[in-house]
Amino acid sequence: MMMEIAICGTFSPKQLARLKQIAGDDELRLVTPEQNCSSPVVFGNPDPEVISANANLRWLQLESVGFGEYSALDWSRGESEVVVTNLAGFFAEPVAESALAGILALYRGIDELVRCQSDGRWIGDPLRTKLKTLRHGRVLLFGYGTINSRLAELLMPFDCAITTVTTGTSGALNEALAQADVVVSTVPATPATRGIFDAGRLGLMQPGALFCNFGRGSVVDEAALADALVSGHLGGAVIDVTNDEPLPANHRFWTLPNLILTQHSGGGTMDELDRKIDVFLSNLTRFRNGMPLEGVVDFTRGY
Amino acid sequence: MMMEIAICGTFSPKQLARLKQIAGDDELRLVTPEQNCSSPVVFGNPDPEVISANANLRWLQLESVGFGEYSALDWSRGESEVVVTNLAGFFAEPVAESALAGILALYRGIDELVRCQSDGRWIGDPLRTKLKTLRHGRVLLFGYGTINSRLAELLMPFDCAITTVTTGTSGALNEALAQADVVVSTVPATPATRGIFDAGRLGLMQPGALFCNFGRGSVVDEAALADALVSGHLGGAVIDVTNDEPLPANHRFWTLPNLILTQHSGGGTMDELDRKIDVFLSNLTRFRNGMPLEGVVDFTRGY
Repeated sequence: MMMEIAICGTFSPKQLARLKQIAGDDELRLVTPEQNCSSPVVFGNPDPEVISANANLRWLQLESVGFGEYSALDWSRGESEVVVTNLAGFFAEPVAESALAGILALYRGIDELVRCQSDGRWIGDPLRTKLKTLRHGRVLLFGYGTINSRLAELLMPFDCAITTVTTGTSGALNEALAQADVVVSTVPATPATRGIFDAGRLGLMQPGALFCNFGRGSVVDEAALADALVSGHLGGAVIDVTNDEPLPANHRFWTLPNLILTQHSGGGTMDELDRKIDVFLSNLTRFRNGMPLEGVVDFTRGY
Repeated sequence: MMMEIAICGTFSPKQLARLKQIAGDDELRLVTPEQNCSSPVVFGNPDPEVISANANLRWLQLESVGFGEYSALDWSRGESEVVVTNLAGFFAEPVAESALAGILALYRGIDELVRCQSDGRWIGDPLRTKLKTLRHGRVLLFGYGTINSRLAELLMPFDCAITTVTTGTSGALNEALAQADVVVSTVPATPATRGIFDAGRLGLMQPGALFCNFGRGSVVDEAALADALVSGHLGGAVIDVTNDEPLPANHRFWTLPNLILTQHSGGGTMDELDRKIDVFLSNLTRFRNGMPLEGVVDFTRGY
């Protein structure tokens, strides 16, 4: 039986052709986020109201990991319930690589060298004596989902002493912070993680240590982090996520020389949308064959 | 029997105290590079004439990997010959980490993000769609001494397809260049490697590929590399070594946005001199006990 599939997003002609080919006899309908549709299958992130109004919806494939805007919706449709899938794990590789790129950039002076190059300034030897190697470093991974698991793999050849602390065991966080050369937080925004890296906890960190945040901006007291970097207590920071994005023009993070601001680019790849379509098409095959879908969202857990 | 040990360099009081403690009954003599001495043991890189004039010399511990300036000297002293040791392998970890830092910086946009930050400019999504991941990348390591061996280890978790070509088998270079996403050259300056990366060979590389040089500047035709970056044929370059250092003010490398200039900082670490003293003291113990020294230079091989 023919089924309607709504796709919500901006696709290239090549991507549309690929989606159409896989859709086959099913009808593909390109919609905008605010456009109502009654398709049983929806790919993309339409407005929550549109999703609520879709009485025929059986499966929503989000093109994000986050789903906070949808968490208050009623998913029952008569006797059945809508299945919502997200892109869990999708960003692990690029984000883990961005985290390692940022850490190595600070250790090996890449950020300062780029600024020197912009200024046409040869720095040479005075920089050499400020550089560090990551080998045998003590790394604290706060949050241990797909991103930090992958980062732990990338760190293997560096023979680092890796400690992992999860939000469920965050009582161990204070002790672990005091022992780390590098701290990488990937925990999501929840009431429990809000402002967890405040002045007190940042103060527990080793002098000269690095703080990296690739989870959510709300876990950090940004003024306290800026203070710790200005005072020289912390050696550097790699910040992918901030409370406000884009970062306001007067924010202190812009001008801190030992902070690398990666502007929420961590998850990006040039083939990002193609890979998202891969996930959808792979799940579509499962859906058609009545198999369990990958990445089913658990709204009660909140992430 | 008391022996004189000449140390040539700029040491901190703490470093001098450490050297004196290990010297014990032997006499430690601090010399400048141009200062003649008749010590049987010399640590550092004095002027070649000073080394030639030292008739008592038995062992010279260089504080470098390179030894080209000493290669024409006569090392015979009566019936015996001077043993010269260098710091072979000493820079493998920092240089390999700098190479990976540079590659990941280009793949994950760190260089562009640093420039955006200097300008107070939020770039966000347009950058995301330009980023790449290194996973499953095809990497050509040209030269396979301690630096590229260590880099190969660091690349293990990225599941890269790694090809190694050494100067001895450089006939394979052309073919390998055409198959690589990333090329890392660490070969030394020899007549055989001079200008080996010319316009023709750079032209063989994949469109969008990265070229990295952490060996010696003379292996690259710098104008040809600049052309290949400006035309967009190459995706980027990480250049630690150049023909002239410091790089002249009018050199094209300063202003190429897809070239990261690391200013021969690759080998640097904040504990560099302490670690060099470690090597010397470790070899000094061997020397006193008549054991074979580590890092003995083979002048006939030329590196």
